[in-house]
Amino acid sequence: MGIQLTILGCHSATPRTNAHPTAQYLKINEKHILIDCGEGTQVLLRQHKVPFAKIKHIFISHLHGDHFFGLVGLISTFGLLDRRTELNIYGPKGIKEIITLQLKLSKSWTSFPLLFHELDSTEPTVILEDKKITVTTIPLDHRVYTNGFLFKEKEGLRKLNMENVAMEPEIEICDYHNLKNGKDFVKQDGEIIPNEDLTLPPKKALSYAFCSDTAYKPSIVSIIKNSTLLYHESTFLEDRKDLTERTKHSTAKEAASIAKQANVKQLILGHYSSRYKDITQFKTEAETVFNNVELAKSGKVFVF
Amino acid sequence: MGIQLTILGCHSATPRTNAHPTAQYLKINEKHILIDCGEGTQVLLRQHKVPFAKIKHIFISHLHGDHFFGLVGLISTFGLLDRRTELNIYGPKGIKEIITLQLKLSKSWTSFPLLFHELDSTEPTVILEDKKITVTTIPLDHRVYTNGFLFKEKEGLRKLNMENVAMEPEIEICDYHNLKNGKDFVKQDGEIIPNEDLTLPPKKALSYAFCSDTAYKPSIVSIIKNSTLLYHESTFLEDRKDLTERTKHSTAKEAASIAKQANVKQLILGHYSSRYKDITQFKTEAETVFNNVELAKSGKVFVF
Repeated sequence: MGIQLTILGCHSATPRTNAHPTAQYLKINEKHILIDCGEGTQVLLRQHKVPFAKIKHIFISHLHGDHFFGLVGLISTFGLLDRRTELNIYGPKGIKEIITLQLKLSKSWTSFPLLFHELDSTEPTVILEDKKITVTTIPLDHRVYTNGFLFKEKEGLRKLNMENVAMEPEIEICDYHNLKNGKDFVKQDGEIIPNEDLTLPPKKALSYAFCSDTAYKPSIVSIIKNSTLLYHESTFLEDRKDLTERTKHSTAKEAASIAKQANVKQLILGHYSSRYKDITQFKTEAETVFNNVELAKSGKVFVF
Repeated sequence: MGIQLTILGCHSATPRTNAHPTAQYLKINEKHILIDCGEGTQVLLRQHKVPFAKIKHIFISHLHGDHFFGLVGLISTFGLLDRRTELNIYGPKGIKEIITLQLKLSKSWTSFPLLFHELDSTEPTVILEDKKITVTTIPLDHRVYTNGFLFKEKEGLRKLNMENVAMEPEIEICDYHNLKNGKDFVKQDGEIIPNEDLTLPPKKALSYAFCSDTAYKPSIVSIIKNSTLLYHESTFLEDRKDLTERTKHSTAKEAASIAKQANVKQLILGHYSSRYKDITQFKTEAETVFNNVELAKSGKVFVF
């Protein structure tokens, strides 16, 4: 259980020497995930020593270059490394054509199953669900079709309250499985011991909401309500709020407002416009609205 | 007049922290040219302070990722920088579809004319000619359709031999243009002064042959004969010559053999396989055959 988020790139627009476009590596409930993949992401994965061969799921928010131009290169590299494990790509309709056209023309078919899950719904949709996690789209408001993603752990098993279990000599080890799954214990004389007397609640399931790129969109609050961690883009400060309408981006204050309304534990800001030299201003502005704000930075790791 | 070649990336296969895929910036006869454009090239252009807004011609040798995955990002960046000057892309058939599909899906049409010159001939072909230079394809032998490129300065004007010109009082400044263009001077009495008596030969026109990726292909020698500078790939050393047949790459010794047969002034090696930790071995091996060998390295500048 647990969330570990590594920021690879967190700047907007063009890659520069010390400003990398969006990419994040998320380890959630032992699953290895990549979110967005700007140009140069594969180099950042190596630099930050991410075990990137383990990544089986890549989520692409939208088809602006700073969020996906590194994808085809990463896929090619997986091929050169003779990967055999399947790779799932979730992204807007069209992403399959972009990648397969390039693989076809370079005669570089992959050595592993490459599965595309193209998205076109504008409603929140569960796009991945297994025993460990669910991933739900967060429809955003940007210049092209864009989704954020809500990654949620599934609740684990209940934990045995060994002090109480030990008091009941009839309970054997083979009963533990049923207890952890929430079942009551029935004694030989028919007496029922309620599960709550023998177990403790499971560790709280954590969740991570990734929201980039988007204009201020309060309707996402209901989707991401009570998330542990929220990454929300803040391309601008309030001083250039005039630009948010045309560009469909947010200010730091707007990001903080979403965090507050959604009652998340922590807010991470990123996707800073290159016009701002001092990014600490983003934190200062957001903190006027919400009090647990962190700044995304290449190489920074958040653990919950 | 003159050649200035800046190596941006010169390693094979995947980009790594200190190993960038192929890209070169060439300034020849005042023209600004990019040759190949692996992932991350735009960052290297900035790092090495190349005036990349001046680049009007980009030549792509082939559609393997390590030679063109950075192209769409560079084009997008030109768009973000509000470029207005036209940009010419020369590369294998299919390159236009790859780029335009991505621009279309990201709704990022360029603010400047983007002109594609798709190549499919397997014969040496002049693909760019103007007053200053010619560019001719060098058909190579690789796993996909691949061209090298021969960049040749056009000869400049003859230079006035002022000592002799001053001896002829009838020659006026308005005659200089004809003299520089090789015309004889006719005196009022009909006497002809041969041009060679009044002028000196123009500065020798320089040329640069770029040959990557390719197996050893001696038939290119006639195309690149007597070039000033030759970049020839050397993915392997002779110790792994067994790999050259299947991968269609060359050894350092084979590259040197081409340089010797073509009688070039200087050979630059590059496209090193990551299996070799010490690249000085490439120079040592090539020098057993040809005596003016340099190693490509990111940031290295060659001036002629």
